[in-house]
Amino acid sequence: MKASLIERNSANPILQTTDVKPSAEGLKVIGVFNPGACLFNDEIILLARVAEACQQESGWVKIPIIKLDDGHPRLEILTWQENGRHKIDKSDPRKYLIDGKMYLTSVSHLRLVRSKDGVHFTVDPEPFISPVTSAEIYGIEDVRITRINDSYYLTYTAVSGEGHGVVLASSKDFTTIERHGMIFPPQNKDVCLFPEKIQNKYIALHRPLGDTFGKPSIWYAESPDLLHWGNHSCLMRPGDNEWEQEKIGAGPQPIKTPDGWLLLYHGCGHNSIYSLFLCLLDLNDPRKILKRGNFPILTPEDKWETNGFFPNVVFSNGWVLIPDGTVKIYYGAADNSICLAEATLDNLLKHIG
Amino acid sequence: MKASLIERNSANPILQTTDVKPSAEGLKVIGVFNPGACLFNDEIILLARVAEACQQESGWVKIPIIKLDDGHPRLEILTWQENGRHKIDKSDPRKYLIDGKMYLTSVSHLRLVRSKDGVHFTVDPEPFISPVTSAEIYGIEDVRITRINDSYYLTYTAVSGEGHGVVLASSKDFTTIERHGMIFPPQNKDVCLFPEKIQNKYIALHRPLGDTFGKPSIWYAESPDLLHWGNHSCLMRPGDNEWEQEKIGAGPQPIKTPDGWLLLYHGCGHNSIYSLFLCLLDLNDPRKILKRGNFPILTPEDKWETNGFFPNVVFSNGWVLIPDGTVKIYYGAADNSICLAEATLDNLLKHIG
Repeated sequence: MKASLIERNSANPILQTTDVKPSAEGLKVIGVFNPGACLFNDEIILLARVAEACQQESGWVKIPIIKLDDGHPRLEILTWQENGRHKIDKSDPRKYLIDGKMYLTSVSHLRLVRSKDGVHFTVDPEPFISPVTSAEIYGIEDVRITRINDSYYLTYTAVSGEGHGVVLASSKDFTTIERHGMIFPPQNKDVCLFPEKIQNKYIALHRPLGDTFGKPSIWYAESPDLLHWGNHSCLMRPGDNEWEQEKIGAGPQPIKTPDGWLLLYHGCGHNSIYSLFLCLLDLNDPRKILKRGNFPILTPEDKWETNGFFPNVVFSNGWVLIPDGTVKIYYGAADNSICLAEATLDNLLKHIG
Repeated sequence: MKASLIERNSANPILQTTDVKPSAEGLKVIGVFNPGACLFNDEIILLARVAEACQQESGWVKIPIIKLDDGHPRLEILTWQENGRHKIDKSDPRKYLIDGKMYLTSVSHLRLVRSKDGVHFTVDPEPFISPVTSAEIYGIEDVRITRINDSYYLTYTAVSGEGHGVVLASSKDFTTIERHGMIFPPQNKDVCLFPEKIQNKYIALHRPLGDTFGKPSIWYAESPDLLHWGNHSCLMRPGDNEWEQEKIGAGPQPIKTPDGWLLLYHGCGHNSIYSLFLCLLDLNDPRKILKRGNFPILTPEDKWETNGFFPNVVFSNGWVLIPDGTVKIYYGAADNSICLAEATLDNLLKHIG
């Protein structure tokens, strides 16, 4: 039997909504997915996105949002009666259009989960990072974790009425958190940091989103201090194939290899199916693409990947390189649960060779 | 007779397409508008946006774009026959949708024009800044000029298939130019710089553009070096009135007054009519809005403002404070010509008082 490039764990999905306690009364966990990942001491830590919606009641639409009272966050439930007086478009389960205004159907926060073996995780009872600023009142999503020196830098999507921007935070101990402000203004998502300076500059990949000419692509940016970013340029556009024709975006922090920076990224293709891809960027100038895989390394196949809150999605913003050379790829399945797939770094490099 | 707050110059429009020589054969100047402005030695310098389209031919659609051959820009004319084989949507004169792809109908560059009296201008025969990078191949638009110490910093919109981003350039002599890369990635426009550091940080206003929740608004950002930007936050949203209900964006560099930073900005309201507004920001923290005018200081009235390439637009990205206390506001009229209006700084401050 031919060995696969990448092996799904037999315990998949390794985390499900039933494993997570809601953060407040009246809320229901509808997704635990898209985790950032890192090694911390002798554990693998994930910061999972936990999406919470309201307990629904027939004939009513209820949407949770965060209100700020003098800067203090408070959960509020917005309610509309489905009696024909309101124009309610529910065609996208992630966001409703109500009387012409868009609302997310859930609010996300980041929950810390930890494991010794990388498969069996303990879920913290409380959120690790919750919305607290005006840029975050619709939620916090899809964090990437990058260790630089002795700090873990978190880049997450902050959502509000102003759109999706990307905020930087950091922690040294996964207990206290420092927020560093919004580093990429709306519309932006999918920001990962390189784990070291290159040519004396910090490097990020990001994914601006527009509605004019091009398809959403992966962009490059530089910084002297991680807080301020410039010299933006378009690095990689969606390939003209069924797997990435709609948009692409960077995954977790790139892994340094002798051959180049190994980048995991997602493509959204035909019928909004999300898959995972690899490419290799030049060690000294990541604006140079050395190799790009022609085929996805992972596409939705298992039933929890093809069915769920948003079907046909495998999406990764967290992976961990274990000292034995194994790469553990944590990924969100159908915006609903967390799965694990493993491969050796050698095989991943061969795949794009 | 009651004196107006703001007086249009009787020579308006002070610059028209017939004053400008095309930059290449086969091109036609369809607009000279939206100039950045500054005092330089004993002259007022404008960097006007010059939009050039192809000489049109009945039965054909022709669109100019810049191609890069080994990094060297070359003008190319794209051509489609209007024989029904192509789906051509010309409903917006600024951009056509052809077979599902969007194209600008013109390519813009920046042209230097100079004047001793601020009314009669001499137009340089050649472009001052033309598209030369892959981010600029659809054109360069709507520059703001800010003097900081002995350099003039230019922030202009660069357009390409990747969308609208904002590039920083600088000049000390208006002869040589240094480019500093893209400082705000797509979709962004309307970037002005404050003319000095505040609390040891450079400050910019910008206008991210999204297609999700909010209306395009004016944002704040900080930088240690003008090249890298962070700590983004939403400063000011469109007011719920007929003049700015669609979107707002910052105009030229704010003017420092004892009362605060005076900001000129535009609103796009009902029926896509563009008007000009004033507000006053805190001297020590421009994130604080001290005063905001309830009514526009200028709305399209004259026939070259209400008629033109894009009708009903007054748009300013250039003003100059003369030592006698007069503010000369240069503005684009209907995306077609350049006009001048004048007011005393005192009266402008009283208007928002």
